[in-house]
Amino acid sequence: MKRIPPFRSVRGLVLAALLAFGVQALAQTDPLPSWNDGPAKKAIVEFVQTTTTEGNPNFVPPEERVATFDQDGTLWVEHPMYSQVIYCLDRVPAVVKAKPELAKVEPFKTVMSGNRQAIANLSERDLFKILAVTLAGMSVEQFQEEVKHWLETAKDPRWKRPYTDLTYQPMQEVLAYLRDNGYKTYVVTGGGQDFVRVYAEQVYGIPPEQVVGTAGGTKYGYRKDGKPFLTKEPKLLLNDNNAGKPEGIHLMIGRRPLAAFGNSTGDRQMLEYTKAGDGARLAMLVLHDDAKREYAYGPAQGLPNTKVGAFTQALYDEAVKQGWIVISMKNDWKQVFSFEQ
Amino acid sequence: MKRIPPFRSVRGLVLAALLAFGVQALAQTDPLPSWNDGPAKKAIVEFVQTTTTEGNPNFVPPEERVATFDQDGTLWVEHPMYSQVIYCLDRVPAVVKAKPELAKVEPFKTVMSGNRQAIANLSERDLFKILAVTLAGMSVEQFQEEVKHWLETAKDPRWKRPYTDLTYQPMQEVLAYLRDNGYKTYVVTGGGQDFVRVYAEQVYGIPPEQVVGTAGGTKYGYRKDGKPFLTKEPKLLLNDNNAGKPEGIHLMIGRRPLAAFGNSTGDRQMLEYTKAGDGARLAMLVLHDDAKREYAYGPAQGLPNTKVGAFTQALYDEAVKQGWIVISMKNDWKQVFSFEQ
Repeated sequence: MKRIPPFRSVRGLVLAALLAFGVQALAQTDPLPSWNDGPAKKAIVEFVQTTTTEGNPNFVPPEERVATFDQDGTLWVEHPMYSQVIYCLDRVPAVVKAKPELAKVEPFKTVMSGNRQAIANLSERDLFKILAVTLAGMSVEQFQEEVKHWLETAKDPRWKRPYTDLTYQPMQEVLAYLRDNGYKTYVVTGGGQDFVRVYAEQVYGIPPEQVVGTAGGTKYGYRKDGKPFLTKEPKLLLNDNNAGKPEGIHLMIGRRPLAAFGNSTGDRQMLEYTKAGDGARLAMLVLHDDAKREYAYGPAQGLPNTKVGAFTQALYDEAVKQGWIVISMKNDWKQVFSFEQ
Repeated sequence: MKRIPPFRSVRGLVLAALLAFGVQALAQTDPLPSWNDGPAKKAIVEFVQTTTTEGNPNFVPPEERVATFDQDGTLWVEHPMYSQVIYCLDRVPAVVKAKPELAKVEPFKTVMSGNRQAIANLSERDLFKILAVTLAGMSVEQFQEEVKHWLETAKDPRWKRPYTDLTYQPMQEVLAYLRDNGYKTYVVTGGGQDFVRVYAEQVYGIPPEQVVGTAGGTKYGYRKDGKPFLTKEPKLLLNDNNAGKPEGIHLMIGRRPLAAFGNSTGDRQMLEYTKAGDGARLAMLVLHDDAKREYAYGPAQGLPNTKVGAFTQALYDEAVKQGWIVISMKNDWKQVFSFEQ
């Protein structure tokens, strides 16, 4: 039971107890109750059975069982804006208060104007500029406290709930199902590694050391009392998007995943890299085609293109060609969020 | 038992069986049989008991139990030259064969001369140049195969054994003892991350994802048949020495270690960072003062200074001031290598 967060230990205990008392029904329990029967659910169950059944030609020893998950749009809502971008925008007033000269400079001027449309139209370059200014120079602990506080107070305007409530129940089931079968689950996100690490253990059951993300440098130094500390630096070490995903996986994990889950062109190389390994491999893409329960976007469906999570026609074509499985939120998911019903 | 390599599962099983049958003697078994009784052994045992006994004010939940180990000079022999440097020098003839123009250029000319003294005097800059040329452009898999082959064939000239035999038995016991008590053990080395990952699981029981080391970039690309692969790049991402150790720990693990082990000035910041955390912390330095069974070096002992593992007077003074514990190889270790006796 070592190394497993408490609430998972409890689950482990319960499982062990059930097995010990010979409850046969356990084998019949559906590990993915929020999934409708269909090719997506079938593929997940078959992959797990194939790779974990001793004697199967595709059996994989437990220490090699690695599964990687993109976060935004794959594990939780990314529309209309990544949560981390909202966090950074929310920090701008405090930053401008500390450095008033920024109020007259773009992109801070636009953010301070409160013009939603203009803010939504900020370029990636502008967002990086905001990110660098809002994060740089903080100690690692200060940053963690800030993010924690923000997560406890900020709410998504549509669901009126904390952002951490907006994870997809079916994907939480996949995470738990894989772990129950000896898989180590990783978040591999274009989002900030330090940002996601603040809540990944509580929200996904994924410890900080299993979060790979876009990472800036830190700088080791000493406080006046001689105590050492790390400061966040505006230097990019790993841009964990596109080709940066397999490169980051190699750097941080050093093993090729057996299963990978994504939802946009930024995940393409991670899925390619995963599928290029020997034996049974699973590559899946979440398609946002459910305007009623979540959102519908992506040009592959003739839906409006957006800044986040571009699921292009080229990606769709590659998925078909390579045998990646597209998860239709609308058809494959019985329930989207845990708070429904 | 998930996630644990097979041979450790077996040990786990045996332990569970022993406990189940109520063998009381188990509690009396010495977890560190190669250590003489003394302050070093006592500190390790007390630290483990303190941090893992529920109800103790310094109790630490299992998921936070992280211990980091420098490699060269801490887990295995580093004198007179780091094994990875020897590996790189051994590769030079093949590199020169492929690029004959290098034979006339320093530092390759010196390496090809076979002049041992001149080779030993190469600067760190020269060695980096050799490293960059010998490793760059290889695929990650090619590199792994190369290192594996080298480890199987190369032998240390003094002991006439593979380098992987030259690990310190007492430190192997510390690794196992910590893991048996719920600790995740990490190598945090100035050596190459990809190099150490090739053998860390077999030699130390430490999986690739728990090896943090000096890391170069990789580049994602496609073979002619369309298969993706990663190439090693001569671009330094993480120089895992000195301040780079706590910075690397933050990047790769995202938690502050509770215990850290080193042997030179390159480990200073890792030990400082470890000790600066709350609660019980353990910081230890291996002192090479055993010319008979291993080597004696380091100016703190009035021993000849060497290029590797500088244990300076300043480091010794800081150890005393900060309460770090110095391990005397001569006095604290009953046995140095597993093959003795």
